[in-house]
Amino acid sequence: MRILVTGAAGMIGRKLTARLLKERAIAGRAITSIDLHDVVPFDAPDAGDIAIATHASDLSVPGSAASLIEGRPDIVFHLAGIVSGQAEAEFDLGYSVNLDGTRSLFEAVRSAGHAPRVVYTSSIAVYGGPFPDVIPDDFHTSPLSSYGAQKVMGEALLQDYTRRGFMDGVGLRLPGITVRPGKPNKAASGFFSNIIREPLSGLPAVLPVPRSVVCTHASPRAAVGFLIHAAAIDGAAVGPHRNLALPGAAVTVGEQIEALARVAGNDVVKLIREEHDDTIWAMVQNWPTRFEARRARALDFKAEESFDEIIRAYIEDDLNQ
Amino acid sequence: MRILVTGAAGMIGRKLTARLLKERAIAGRAITSIDLHDVVPFDAPDAGDIAIATHASDLSVPGSAASLIEGRPDIVFHLAGIVSGQAEAEFDLGYSVNLDGTRSLFEAVRSAGHAPRVVYTSSIAVYGGPFPDVIPDDFHTSPLSSYGAQKVMGEALLQDYTRRGFMDGVGLRLPGITVRPGKPNKAASGFFSNIIREPLSGLPAVLPVPRSVVCTHASPRAAVGFLIHAAAIDGAAVGPHRNLALPGAAVTVGEQIEALARVAGNDVVKLIREEHDDTIWAMVQNWPTRFEARRARALDFKAEESFDEIIRAYIEDDLNQ
Ligand SMILES: NC(=O)c1ccc[n+]([C@@H]2O[C@H](COP(=O)([O-])OP(=O)(O)OC[C@H]3O[C@@H](n4cnc5c(N)ncnc54)[C@H](O)[C@@H]3O)[C@@H](O)[C@H]2O)c1
Ligand SMILES: NC(=O)c1ccc[n+]([C@@H]2O[C@H](COP(=O)([O-])OP(=O)(O)OC[C@H]3O[C@@H](n4cnc5c(N)ncnc54)[C@H](O)[C@@H]3O)[C@@H](O)[C@H]2O)c1
Repeated sequence: MRILVTGAAGMIGRKLTARLLKERAIAGRAITSIDLHDVVPFDAPDAGDIAIATHASDLSVPGSAASLIEGRPDIVFHLAGIVSGQAEAEFDLGYSVNLDGTRSLFEAVRSAGHAPRVVYTSSIAVYGGPFPDVIPDDFHTSPLSSYGAQKVMGEALLQDYTRRGFMDGVGLRLPGITVRPGKPNKAASGFFSNIIREPLSGLPAVLPVPRSVVCTHASPRAAVGFLIHAAAIDGAAVGPHRNLALPGAAVTVGEQIEALARVAGNDVVKLIREEHDDTIWAMVQNWPTRFEARRARALDFKAEESFDEIIRAYIEDDLNQ
Repeated sequence: MRILVTGAAGMIGRKLTARLLKERAIAGRAITSIDLHDVVPFDAPDAGDIAIATHASDLSVPGSAASLIEGRPDIVFHLAGIVSGQAEAEFDLGYSVNLDGTRSLFEAVRSAGHAPRVVYTSSIAVYGGPFPDVIPDDFHTSPLSSYGAQKVMGEALLQDYTRRGFMDGVGLRLPGITVRPGKPNKAASGFFSNIIREPLSGLPAVLPVPRSVVCTHASPRAAVGFLIHAAAIDGAAVGPHRNLALPGAAVTVGEQIEALARVAGNDVVKLIREEHDDTIWAMVQNWPTRFEARRARALDFKAEESFDEIIRAYIEDDLNQ
């Protein structure tokens, strides 16, 4: 089984690669090669007898997608993208990578003609408020950010290219991926991770919104689990609607902090300082809170059930590594 | 007030132009110029003291949109498009005109910098089944046709370009526009009009689906009314969600035929021959039926309440002209 990962140098890409190299198979089929692609140059991890290669190119530049598909991968994990904060700050860059890059990749897949499984990382940013208490699977995707608009367009392409038989796509509307390891990225939602990650390393963190803010979270480990599950899922079971809202732990920021206290103690929690930020607060109020995710649950996508588990996943997978 | 119409040689474009020339103002502001654009060359109607011009170019070709926006129109009616049947048959053409053409136009508007009102003709093809009995305004747009996918992408662009202040867009999800005058076009939904128009002219017509099929219809006259209403509507009242489902007369094909009998007599109805078509029937089952259209009604978009009215509008506006 040949695998291609775009955006492989990113946070989820690295964790996905590590998991693939650990499991060495997807749904019982051995992995023979992994092509890792990103716009930033990076080193391939050691892969034993799996043929591994890295490719550095800008997906939005004509021709670069085609060369990635030359090896006719069986599974394409399409993770390359400009995240929300940057897509809002750099309008043209966001459209060029998130829309044109995605379209180029799908076109290259179409030209290759072997209709591989394509797993696409969409986002809950496809939704725009106001929201019902719990968002059903058939709730409209009417985004209120450029990033969300670009993801909606990627989803529409994925579904259409799949319906036409050009590929076998599954789009995943990832919830907030928390705790994000390493340094903060340009996502405006960074604080959801910062308030856990920084205190766990003995560093101060700023909470810019009220504790009542609700968000649905899954760990990077769960995100990788979603991707691998989607890689092997029966397309007929997914049906014609190819973009899925996913389960996760829906908690308030207050509950996140209570979980942190339970897992790491009250002194750690004291490192969180509340400092209101109007810009972030304005954005957060347009973010979705809870999801029904009925289809994804029925299709056996699994996430953590509590925020305590999410913190423990971070401690095991990142802090203690 | 300067006006630009793309797709002006099309069915709705011609009727919109005629109405603008008759009313000579929108919401009390006098029309000073009308630029009519289409890929097919056509003659400008007589316009008296309104400066009228036609422009023949392919909207999807780089540069052509920019030249249309040079005159800094106050209102852009963007009607140019490849209709559903053809977008399904000619994949690349559909994306090139419906997606790239729309994006070029919006980019040209963004470059011009004066943020005009842009009225965009989307379609109920943005929806994919299964459907609830009545489709609410916040029902997901998960299309099951290439045309629908392209319209979803146009809607996402429109909403984002509006939110960013590049234009002041309103997207209208037109219901079935019935009775379509003239020759049948390549829309698979052609029979909804054919079974009325052809018999009214003494010609036979084929009904390829069961009489129980439900669709929401508005006349071309009502469609033009929607466009003109959208041209002048207060953007703040529309709010951030810029794409609207519209009202119409939701009737079964059987009720359409009963209305025809009431308006034109039983002999006319006898010209309809039932001849089942599996391909059309398969498509029709994925088409939406009834809409709540609560937002559009609250915003005072008006359509016919009965199919009898729709037939009479056709007789007055087309058959007797
Ligand atoms: N982390 C989250 O909370 C979250 C939530 C929803 C969706 N997503 C989506 O999941 C995907 C991966 O997320 P992540 O958290 O790993 O993000 P990330 O920013 O860590 O990784 C994205 C990668 O894409 C690469 N990239 C950017 N432009 C590129 C280009 N032109 N060509 C090739 N590669 C390019 C970047 O260099 C980066 O390595 C993204 O598409 C993101 O939008 C993430
Ligand atoms: N009629 C309906 O039932 C209906 C329903 C929903 C939405 N719509 C939408 O409303 C709009 C107008 O519909 P219509 O019924 O008048 O369709 P139409 O086919 O009669 O008119 C569309 C016009 O666009 C022009 N066009 C095509 N490609 C072009 C290009 N590359 N550059 C410039 N012009 C181009 C065509 O020449 C045509 O004159 C379309 O966007 C259509 O998708 C129509």
